[in-house]
Amino acid sequence: MTVVMPAGVAVARDLVGPATEAALSRLSPGVRRVAAYHYGLADADGNPIRGGSGKALRPALALLSARAAGAAPERGVTPAVAVELVHNFSLLHDDIMDGDTERRHRPTAWTVFGVGAAILAGDALLALANDLLLEDMAPGGPWAARCLSTAVQRLIAGQGEDLAFERRGDVTLAECLQMAGDKTAALMACACTIGAVHVGASPEMAMGLAEFGGHVGLAFQLTDDLLGIWGAPEVTGKPVRADLRARKKSLPVVAALASGTPQALELAQILASSADLTEDDLVHAADLVVAAGGRQWAEEEADSRLAAAAAALDGIGVPADVRAEFIAIAEFITARQW
Amino acid sequence: MTVVMPAGVAVARDLVGPATEAALSRLSPGVRRVAAYHYGLADADGNPIRGGSGKALRPALALLSARAAGAAPERGVTPAVAVELVHNFSLLHDDIMDGDTERRHRPTAWTVFGVGAAILAGDALLALANDLLLEDMAPGGPWAARCLSTAVQRLIAGQGEDLAFERRGDVTLAECLQMAGDKTAALMACACTIGAVHVGASPEMAMGLAEFGGHVGLAFQLTDDLLGIWGAPEVTGKPVRADLRARKKSLPVVAALASGTPQALELAQILASSADLTEDDLVHAADLVVAAGGRQWAEEEADSRLAAAAAALDGIGVPADVRAEFIAIAEFITARQW
Repeated sequence: MTVVMPAGVAVARDLVGPATEAALSRLSPGVRRVAAYHYGLADADGNPIRGGSGKALRPALALLSARAAGAAPERGVTPAVAVELVHNFSLLHDDIMDGDTERRHRPTAWTVFGVGAAILAGDALLALANDLLLEDMAPGGPWAARCLSTAVQRLIAGQGEDLAFERRGDVTLAECLQMAGDKTAALMACACTIGAVHVGASPEMAMGLAEFGGHVGLAFQLTDDLLGIWGAPEVTGKPVRADLRARKKSLPVVAALASGTPQALELAQILASSADLTEDDLVHAADLVVAAGGRQWAEEEADSRLAAAAAALDGIGVPADVRAEFIAIAEFITARQW
Repeated sequence: MTVVMPAGVAVARDLVGPATEAALSRLSPGVRRVAAYHYGLADADGNPIRGGSGKALRPALALLSARAAGAAPERGVTPAVAVELVHNFSLLHDDIMDGDTERRHRPTAWTVFGVGAAILAGDALLALANDLLLEDMAPGGPWAARCLSTAVQRLIAGQGEDLAFERRGDVTLAECLQMAGDKTAALMACACTIGAVHVGASPEMAMGLAEFGGHVGLAFQLTDDLLGIWGAPEVTGKPVRADLRARKKSLPVVAALASGTPQALELAQILASSADLTEDDLVHAADLVVAAGGRQWAEEEADSRLAAAAAALDGIGVPADVRAEFIAIAEFITARQW
């Protein structure tokens, strides 16, 4: 499995970066400053900086999506910018809700500018995404806007479930998968579809691409959850076993808890204890997730989602080179680097 | 000047109320609960209650807007619901940003459900408004969505300016008028236009209606600011001079401060003092606003905006009965009841 960044991601950054900056420049000054900081385009005082903004994976998928329908990648730029705006809207608001103080190795926007300014900046990005899709006179502009709007509703539903799960001890694996589908996979599916819809693709192609993106999104979440326990700190940017320390009910953990094994019971006791967890506790808890089958389940589920994703691209008329690039990105974002 | 609620407002409530409830029922359960509480449709435990939801002024304007273009009021229902969803999105988020703990005589949503849940519910209402306009297959659906999206951007810009003004002592009257135009008038203009745009009205009519609504919105804000100082508590639901106690830089106050009179200086000193303001201070401050000409300016400005609003309806083909109803609502929401 390759771990080299696919060429399409760098291409997307070059095409979508300037369009994103142009879009953000339309915001009113106060909001623009927060957005530019969050995107990694400026420091807290508004001075331009370079290189901070995320991995551009969703924009790369959106450009491929336009190419899947036979259009030039340039025609996917507006949908790509819009999807990334929605992704960043949700990051800005989620960081407040989750009380997260760091993102991409920088203080989160709400810690720098205050909760109110960060709420407002998120609102502005969501509204801007809609503006961009509606003012672009592409044949499928309104359909693309609906595709995004539906993904936003699922994103919000997923975040709501996530917040609710924190207060519950009895969350099932099915509920967690549903939540990951809403919170992560829906926008990934939208990214894989929106460029094609925007240029007027057939419903068959749109549905096939959405299925691809939905599977990739879940495989991505499973991988993220696996890396949150066993990932190398130099890859994840977080200490090893960080998700266990935070007692996060990630998919491998919930799968282990649901296994009905003796280890599940012991794991539940460790996670429910009110004391701080020592390094020994964390190592032991990670071993229990393995012994209860949680890690193996998550790895197999990620692999089978990836296979299902590839199969979804068959027979819907996606050109071979575009198909190969879709799969390269899917493999890249689900690579497990321990 | 009439202070009896125009019949159109009650009609709007009957038509738009059920459509609003149907729209809210599409939200995911956690978010729906917060939204239903905020709308005054349910108590904090989710039990249905009656009669809480606002005055339905914007929905009434949106229905009239469809009728202005010769369509049945029913065809304005979707735009009316969407405008009211956006209004409530902004109330939910503004209450968090402004730290307001009471709205419509009930605890604000964030005080009941927490900041995170209230952010999320606001997000969901904004996204839902877009969904509704885009899925409705009216000829002007996408245009109506853009009309709303533009209003949302100005709403956000206005709230950003409002937050920034709180930290500044040197806000000019022109800046305050601009802020009121963004924060209040833009959505009012959208409400007066969106129904017509949705059913395919001519650009001339759309622009005339938008001009009407913009003027009405500013007259409404001026009136609200006047009532915030001199309004009867039984009308405003707030103690008399509440805005002065909160040291709010409302339009009559800023006009007084900008008057260059000796009273302006004295008023500035009272508002800048760090001590709690006594009842005597408040009475004196209100007198200074009058003496410095702030009250008279605001009254005259409101009246002239109302006249300009009425003139904007001329010559754009609005039927006489619809014109009369538009003006009745404009007069109703700008009536000064001391």
